[in-house]
Amino acid sequence: MDWLTGDERLDFLYAEGLRIIQSSSVFSFSIDAVLLANFAYVPIRKGKILDLCSGNGVIPLLLSGRTKAPIIGVELQGKLHNMAVRSVAYNHLENQIEMIHGDLKEMPKHLGQGQFDAITCNPPYFQTPSKEIQNRNEHYALARHEIACTLEDVIAACSKLAKSGAKVSIVHRPGRLMDLFTLMREYRLEPKRLQFVYPKPGKEANIILIEGVKDGNPDLKVLPPLFIYKDDNQYSEQVGELLYGKNGGGGNDGS
Amino acid sequence: MDWLTGDERLDFLYAEGLRIIQSSSVFSFSIDAVLLANFAYVPIRKGKILDLCSGNGVIPLLLSGRTKAPIIGVELQGKLHNMAVRSVAYNHLENQIEMIHGDLKEMPKHLGQGQFDAITCNPPYFQTPSKEIQNRNEHYALARHEIACTLEDVIAACSKLAKSGAKVSIVHRPGRLMDLFTLMREYRLEPKRLQFVYPKPGKEANIILIEGVKDGNPDLKVLPPLFIYKDDNQYSEQVGELLYGKNGGGGNDGS
Repeated sequence: MDWLTGDERLDFLYAEGLRIIQSSSVFSFSIDAVLLANFAYVPIRKGKILDLCSGNGVIPLLLSGRTKAPIIGVELQGKLHNMAVRSVAYNHLENQIEMIHGDLKEMPKHLGQGQFDAITCNPPYFQTPSKEIQNRNEHYALARHEIACTLEDVIAACSKLAKSGAKVSIVHRPGRLMDLFTLMREYRLEPKRLQFVYPKPGKEANIILIEGVKDGNPDLKVLPPLFIYKDDNQYSEQVGELLYGKNGGGGNDGS
Repeated sequence: MDWLTGDERLDFLYAEGLRIIQSSSVFSFSIDAVLLANFAYVPIRKGKILDLCSGNGVIPLLLSGRTKAPIIGVELQGKLHNMAVRSVAYNHLENQIEMIHGDLKEMPKHLGQGQFDAITCNPPYFQTPSKEIQNRNEHYALARHEIACTLEDVIAACSKLAKSGAKVSIVHRPGRLMDLFTLMREYRLEPKRLQFVYPKPGKEANIILIEGVKDGNPDLKVLPPLFIYKDDNQYSEQVGELLYGKNGGGGNDGS
């Protein structure tokens, strides 16, 4: 089987010892996905895990290192879904990971309500005020802007798909924290764990990680802060470990 | 004039070169007030500043070092108000700081709506489920529990007293962040700046500082994290500076 097409690359997921198909013209995963896969609660053996807005499948691939439970990934874009399917096959994970090509809004009907124990989602971050400021690249535009789904669509779908007591983990930008809180409470996903990610010490947070529990009681914890870089622009130890593993398997550029 | 009564002490506010009357049986200020006084926006010369739930007046005293503008403090408890009045006099700040003995819920009527450019509040933190778990000491109970005013009373009063565009700064616990967001938006105090305070690196946040702008547009920034202590249990540099000034005027116990 010829694994790659066009400008695709076969990149490393060092910490997990896996490979992933990416393409700079279509999609490559960001640090946000790595942080979410680490932040998210997953059952170790039993239960069902769902990843929405799955892109090239990076989160299901990363989670496969932490759980024996089956994982379903859902991606709207055919090209990205196809990359994910091939990455799953390349890593021989077809028995654990199933990639669905579809719209998250259809998933409660397609997969059934209240079926999942853990749900992750790295949704589009940007509201879409005008065509001009949307990214010109169609694939990136759909992944980054709320064109195909709004934040409310995402939260509503997560809520319907989650079992009572299930944990739903989402990565987003600090500017949307208010909307996340409001929507999550409205859709019965009570915020329980919140972590702020800062590019480096002394800078404002630029990423938030939030976990809601379906039908949970109000009791929010704010986890210790996470810094991506140290003052010297090297990855912090925490993030270096997530990217390259405890023993720092690979170098920055696969060197 | 005999400045102190009963078990009162005349403590230092080192960084400001001021003194403050406190009493372990009635009220002593906490680090939360120091953090809020530092976090809060204040106009440097013009404008009117208000501090609600003022206790022994620690926040007006601390703010007086940062502004020439007049400051009004409001405290419900007579004993605490009386301590604050004496501290203001001791520091010769009667021309800048006025302490009002009264209920914050009455202040919009008493002081007028939309009069203030900056408002600070270190409200009671704890909801009051039962008399048993409330603090036995009446003074501490009123200062710590939502007995005389709820969080909604506080936010409602702040909103009424604030000019359009005024900045309202509140210190609270992370567990109430959801309620703060919800109430602040409901009362047109749009959350704009949020800072999490952690007891030390690697621990969950235990204090939040939040600024809302009356009639502001949604645009929340999450400031760099603040740590109270370093790993070695010494105050962090930031907090040491707030307590003892840049040159570290005093020691931990006034030594």
